[in-house]
Amino acid sequence: MKNKITQLILGLLWTVSMTAQNNQALIKKSIEDQQWNIIDEFRTFLAIPNVAANQQGIQDNAQWMMNYMKSKGIEEVSLLSLPNTSVPPVVFGEVKVPGATETIIFYAHYDGQPVDTTKWFPGTHPFKPTLYSGSYEKGATTLPWLTKGNNYDWNARIYARGASDDKAGVMAIINAYAQLKVLNIKPTVNIKFFFEGEEEAGSPNLDQILAAHKNNLSANMWVICDGPVHQSGKKLLVMGVRGDTHIELTVFGPKRPLHSGHYGNWVLNPAMELVRLLASMKNEKGEVTIKGFYDDVTPLTNTEKEALSKVPSVEAQLKNELGINATEREGGLNDALQWPSLNINGIQSAGVGKLSANVIPTKAIASVDIRLVKGNDWQKQQQKVIDHIKAQGFYVTDKEPTDEERKLYSKICMVNLDKNSYNAQKTSLDNPYVKRIAKAIELSNGEAPIQLPTVGGSLPLFVFEKVLQSSPITVPLANHDNNQHAENENIKLKNFFEGIQLFSSIMIMGK
Amino acid sequence: MKNKITQLILGLLWTVSMTAQNNQALIKKSIEDQQWNIIDEFRTFLAIPNVAANQQGIQDNAQWMMNYMKSKGIEEVSLLSLPNTSVPPVVFGEVKVPGATETIIFYAHYDGQPVDTTKWFPGTHPFKPTLYSGSYEKGATTLPWLTKGNNYDWNARIYARGASDDKAGVMAIINAYAQLKVLNIKPTVNIKFFFEGEEEAGSPNLDQILAAHKNNLSANMWVICDGPVHQSGKKLLVMGVRGDTHIELTVFGPKRPLHSGHYGNWVLNPAMELVRLLASMKNEKGEVTIKGFYDDVTPLTNTEKEALSKVPSVEAQLKNELGINATEREGGLNDALQWPSLNINGIQSAGVGKLSANVIPTKAIASVDIRLVKGNDWQKQQQKVIDHIKAQGFYVTDKEPTDEERKLYSKICMVNLDKNSYNAQKTSLDNPYVKRIAKAIELSNGEAPIQLPTVGGSLPLFVFEKVLQSSPITVPLANHDNNQHAENENIKLKNFFEGIQLFSSIMIMGK
Repeated sequence: MKNKITQLILGLLWTVSMTAQNNQALIKKSIEDQQWNIIDEFRTFLAIPNVAANQQGIQDNAQWMMNYMKSKGIEEVSLLSLPNTSVPPVVFGEVKVPGATETIIFYAHYDGQPVDTTKWFPGTHPFKPTLYSGSYEKGATTLPWLTKGNNYDWNARIYARGASDDKAGVMAIINAYAQLKVLNIKPTVNIKFFFEGEEEAGSPNLDQILAAHKNNLSANMWVICDGPVHQSGKKLLVMGVRGDTHIELTVFGPKRPLHSGHYGNWVLNPAMELVRLLASMKNEKGEVTIKGFYDDVTPLTNTEKEALSKVPSVEAQLKNELGINATEREGGLNDALQWPSLNINGIQSAGVGKLSANVIPTKAIASVDIRLVKGNDWQKQQQKVIDHIKAQGFYVTDKEPTDEERKLYSKICMVNLDKNSYNAQKTSLDNPYVKRIAKAIELSNGEAPIQLPTVGGSLPLFVFEKVLQSSPITVPLANHDNNQHAENENIKLKNFFEGIQLFSSIMIMGK
Repeated sequence: MKNKITQLILGLLWTVSMTAQNNQALIKKSIEDQQWNIIDEFRTFLAIPNVAANQQGIQDNAQWMMNYMKSKGIEEVSLLSLPNTSVPPVVFGEVKVPGATETIIFYAHYDGQPVDTTKWFPGTHPFKPTLYSGSYEKGATTLPWLTKGNNYDWNARIYARGASDDKAGVMAIINAYAQLKVLNIKPTVNIKFFFEGEEEAGSPNLDQILAAHKNNLSANMWVICDGPVHQSGKKLLVMGVRGDTHIELTVFGPKRPLHSGHYGNWVLNPAMELVRLLASMKNEKGEVTIKGFYDDVTPLTNTEKEALSKVPSVEAQLKNELGINATEREGGLNDALQWPSLNINGIQSAGVGKLSANVIPTKAIASVDIRLVKGNDWQKQQQKVIDHIKAQGFYVTDKEPTDEERKLYSKICMVNLDKNSYNAQKTSLDNPYVKRIAKAIELSNGEAPIQLPTVGGSLPLFVFEKVLQSSPITVPLANHDNNQHAENENIKLKNFFEGIQLFSSIMIMGK
């Protein structure tokens, strides 16, 4: 009797397994058949400018997405916004599945980082998507867009702002559902779609939007699609993100630019004052020397240490690819990312190269990016930096100095704090959905994903815990060498198409 | 008898003195009468773009000047160039005075510093001269150009590239002679005009031009008109200039811009490496900490020390005007200028402000300006900087690093040396012409000029000694707050018109 039951159960499991595998094959073929069309739609989407500061562009994107979602069979589509404001709306959608008792909500964002078109490769443009046979840096050449019945080389890449960060996420999630709909495969969970429009601006209104629309947003798990996969090319399941804040420092010199000959040696040079200040913030070992910078860090759990030990080593490959010999902190990449960081994003004073002139500049500016890990509070981290600047003898102000202040203080630093900052977030590796989603990813891909306690990048994921008491996990899809946040952003088609299948697989995940 | 002779001599001296004073009054009135016309011609000249790299602009300037000099009665006008080259020509002119046994050659330059039009005040443009009621920074408003019979407010300022540095010099020298011609006052010396076209590019061909045209260029004294007058507003007689060289440093990071979250803490940030390098070059006291930087400095003579002690103090006024509280080196401005300097002209890595993005930049660049005093050799000073960079652990190259170099070295700095550099020059305070020219300046102005052993700025004056064994002295005319070498360059009309009279006065100087 026991044997029979065992046989029955095993047979049932086999059937379930075969069905699951069969479904994966069907989904794969469906994506392959539709690739020309999906890419056509993707590049239409990418051509709509999506810098968060461009309100019209954001509205156009949101409108396009609503129509697109409806065209793919997602009937309940709406904009979640805040009354009487012009904040970029969340594009929301919902699919209720008869009999399903659980809900998974999929997140991506449709806004992009600011662009400096002059820095893009010749022939590329942030909002005129172009297709290349591979990586432009490695000598790839342009390819034509294809029509029905033709297959793309999946090593090809689309160059455009948002190509990977994060319109690829939006497109992959919508198309994941579209395949199930076309194939008539029933999802095992209720599905919600949540596409944010101001993530790159630091999600200043996300908490309010979540709070205002709390009733629509209940879910068992948030699945965030953003960022790149592991440098090894393996799929990732990420438990957390670092927090992020920014500080812009402006050191002031003379009120007008001075001839460096007639005044050099006598008038303090603000560029020299700024570099001395910045140099005081970090030592040669890559350790931030600002007092108390590491004080609040929550130590890693043993489970997290174990997960980290299983991450494949990509350091040698990365060094080769990036053309670097040494690293800032000792140890591996993922060891380094478990710590808060302080990084110069940009620095500027007067001109260099052809624009260089013999001047003592009037001011020198540095944009500094501070990443936070679990335990850090962004306002406390900002304050530590301010205290450090004061300890170096600077008068700190948040405005251009007045004549009175210039008379009183030898060294003046304007500190502009990013108010739209956020703390780190980490979901426990023991959360029951983690194992199920990992299995779904493995089914889509044939390989178990790497599990990371945190990535180095940032998303305001803490708000899901704070406002909705929901735990988010992140499932990225982009190639790691995607130039996201910079000029020449790109997505590899293989990553994009596999991403679609991966999200389909999560939508039909098993118990 | 003795009394009679004494009376005769005194009477003669009085007549000479009265004639001299009478001539000054005539010149002054002539300038006042012609001011509308001189300004009209000046602004026509200023509208011709004069950045040294713009060959057509340089040619247009030279052609305009030749015609202009001829129209003012300077008959022997020619271009001094180098055969079979396109180097900016010197515009040369000569007036032979019957009976004169001495020759004074007047130098100015007609090329200007590079321009970044976006940084000019709204309403101003480097090559569209505009007239303001005073200093734009202090709230001046635009004024119209005037027609014949109207008088300008001499506190007004013309804003344009070259307005003070150094087309004002060219115009003042030509118009100084023009007044004598109009008034039929005979110069006491032969006069030569020498207007250079690539001073702001470091005068790379001046020595060759002097050598090639040596026969034309014999003179008892070179009088250089360039730079600003003393900050007290008093006229200056300057014995020397600092030498000048430039070094551009580029520190390399990863081959492509990286997301500062995903890689921050692990990949070395080139901006941080550059600021640490620059900070290592100078201490908090303003002393350059590069080994041997001050080793070759020739000490001041007692005469020079005495002259320096007589320079009026302008430090308090300057600090107030510049909005600064402290200075880099202890002591007064002119004490500081007796030393070689190292100054950051500009620094740049990725973007700041609205162009800031969350990246680890691929490179960071600094333009460094090094001034030299008597005793310094520019090539030796450059080498000291290179040795210092190496001592900080950098591999130094003069090209973009190859992949092979990137594999071998942790820290890479590309060092681009300015080959068009030159040493300092100083004429002795005991030179017999110094006293006579000082007297001529006093006559034009009613006040003895301040005598400075050197100014902080640079001109390639050493070549006059080297090639022609001639000693140059400098007689500036521009207001000290003229923004020369930067955006919003301007000349105060008072300085310009008084400059014309001053050079007229030198052309009729006594024994």
